[in-house]
Amino acid sequence: MPLAPELAVSRWFNAAAPITLASLRGRVVMLHAFQMLCPGCVSHGTPQAQRAQQLFRNTDLAVIGLHAVFEHHAAMTPVSLEAFIHEYRLTFPIGVDEASSGDPIPVTMRRYEMRGTPTCVLIGRDGTVRHHGFGQEDDMALGAIIGTLLAETP
Amino acid sequence: MPLAPELAVSRWFNAAAPITLASLRGRVVMLHAFQMLCPGCVSHGTPQAQRAQQLFRNTDLAVIGLHAVFEHHAAMTPVSLEAFIHEYRLTFPIGVDEASSGDPIPVTMRRYEMRGTPTCVLIGRDGTVRHHGFGQEDDMALGAIIGTLLAETP
Amino acid sequence: MPLAPELAVSRWFNAAAPITLASLRGRVVMLHAFQMLCPGCVSHGTPQAQRAQQLFRNTDLAVIGLHAVFEHHAAMTPVSLEAFIHEYRLTFPIGVDEASSGDPIPVTMRRYEMRGTPTCVLIGRDGTVRHHGFGQEDDMALGAIIGTLLAETP
Amino acid sequence: MPLAPELAVSRWFNAAAPITLASLRGRVVMLHAFQMLCPGCVSHGTPQAQRAQQLFRNTDLAVIGLHAVFEHHAAMTPVSLEAFIHEYRLTFPIGVDEASSGDPIPVTMRRYEMRGTPTCVLIGRDGTVRHHGFGQEDDMALGAIIGTLLAETP
Repeated sequence: MPLAPELAVSRWFNAAAPITLASLRGRVVMLHAFQMLCPGCVSHGTPQAQRAQQLFRNTDLAVIGLHAVFEHHAAMTPVSLEAFIHEYRLTFPIGVDEASSGDPIPVTMRRYEMRGTPTCVLIGRDGTVRHHGFGQEDDMALGAIIGTLLAETP
Repeated sequence: MPLAPELAVSRWFNAAAPITLASLRGRVVMLHAFQMLCPGCVSHGTPQAQRAQQLFRNTDLAVIGLHAVFEHHAAMTPVSLEAFIHEYRLTFPIGVDEASSGDPIPVTMRRYEMRGTPTCVLIGRDGTVRHHGFGQEDDMALGAIIGTLLAETP
Repeated sequence: MPLAPELAVSRWFNAAAPITLASLRGRVVMLHAFQMLCPGCVSHGTPQAQRAQQLFRNTDLAVIGLHAVFEHHAAMTPVSLEAFIHEYRLTFPIGVDEASSGDPIPVTMRRYEMRGTPTCVLIGRDGTVRHHGFGQEDDMALGAIIGTLLAETP
Repeated sequence: MPLAPELAVSRWFNAAAPITLASLRGRVVMLHAFQMLCPGCVSHGTPQAQRAQQLFRNTDLAVIGLHAVFEHHAAMTPVSLEAFIHEYRLTFPIGVDEASSGDPIPVTMRRYEMRGTPTCVLIGRDGTVRHHGFGQEDDMALGAIIGTLLAETP
């Protein structure tokens, strides 16, 4: 399986320092790509990521948010995102996907060939992409994949 | 009962012309005050207002949204609101509550002495305030009040 | 509009004495017909009737349940219904629709020409049927009809 | 960890032949103990078991229902259970927990020292009890445990 492309992030929230996937090698990563004005993200995907962080807080899972804005760019700036994070009480690290000059699709979103938001990418301890899902993820199915990946020998 | 204070709106969405409560006299008005980054509005109050507009579309009920921003002002500008309205497919008229110089609370919100968002105000055919509720409104209770107000002789 | 047919009930629960529609003339009646093993009743209709009783407890609305068994008769006897009422903490009066000899459809269900369960019948203060709905009723729509009927002069 | 006690079942539904845990050794077992008139089972636990069977249908998970009646015995006989299974379209095997003479608690429930219904017991490929939960189980947490147990070498 292919190695997960590295993140390209212009600004981090809820993180003391920039985060790279390279530095998370050996752990399982849940990458939740969203937009703050995407209804399916706000009602389902983003609260699910928050619940995953809480549920697996004592495990090797790292939940990382990616604000992947590919539409309404002027409406979803970092100042708006910051208020969103505050109001929705999100506590997992969230990176702003780096804008691409001349392309509405930001850099990380393009690297992962995401089809839209929400997208959930699960990365194994070996750094390979093990799940890549667009749209609503079922809680039980998501839990099963995470449980399986955590069970692999680091 | 007191007459409902007039709206102070700096910009309308989903309306061909500015709307006044005076012009709606004789009809029942549901005024839904919200903020686009208020979780309780997005998950409950605003979809409820949209459902009310749909349910009572052939009656004398007018559903009016009021974007009453009293916090995170830079995060909830009209350009962001416009994207929000588009993404959430809101079709009822929405006015931006007029900013007040030197006061974070906008003008209409102050006139109604609203405690926060979401706030639901129901105005009878005679122009008086008949219900003023802060927080989550129960669908059945709301329907009952609207049904009662619509039953009054114009 | 036609007068609502009288109830035919073989046994009452949550009632000190048998209830007739005739004795409720002047009040609004919500008649909730259900079966204890009907999934749509258990998940939606019956809790809705319970909420309606609570919401309108200080009004002229009378909520009446009707256990209208038309299938699996041996599985839904009064002894099972009694446990169901206890476990689901139902507090509104519930009558067992009278069995009809040679007909799986019980008497009241036949009189009202109900198509199945849940069925919600709303009866005005004048005793006429004002709403007759099969399946899931929207809370707001139901509230609106009840509010309208309560607003009529007794 | 202790070996899971064997099931004591007086009658099976949705099964061609009686099922024993011994015969399932090497597979993961989800044992869902419920009562057909237990509101928390009907609204949450039992549909969750049905979803688990569907989600993991191509894996080594076996979902087994246990109708563990410890109250209202006359109200929840096999004839009522059969109609319940039909109406709720349950397709996983369901055993009636064997009645115990002189004890309202049936045999299997007693062996597992279950506190009530719903109870979810997860048994590993080695036949030991790995999870024993009373009440509402979170979908994501349940999925994670199942994923972990399935990942163990048979």
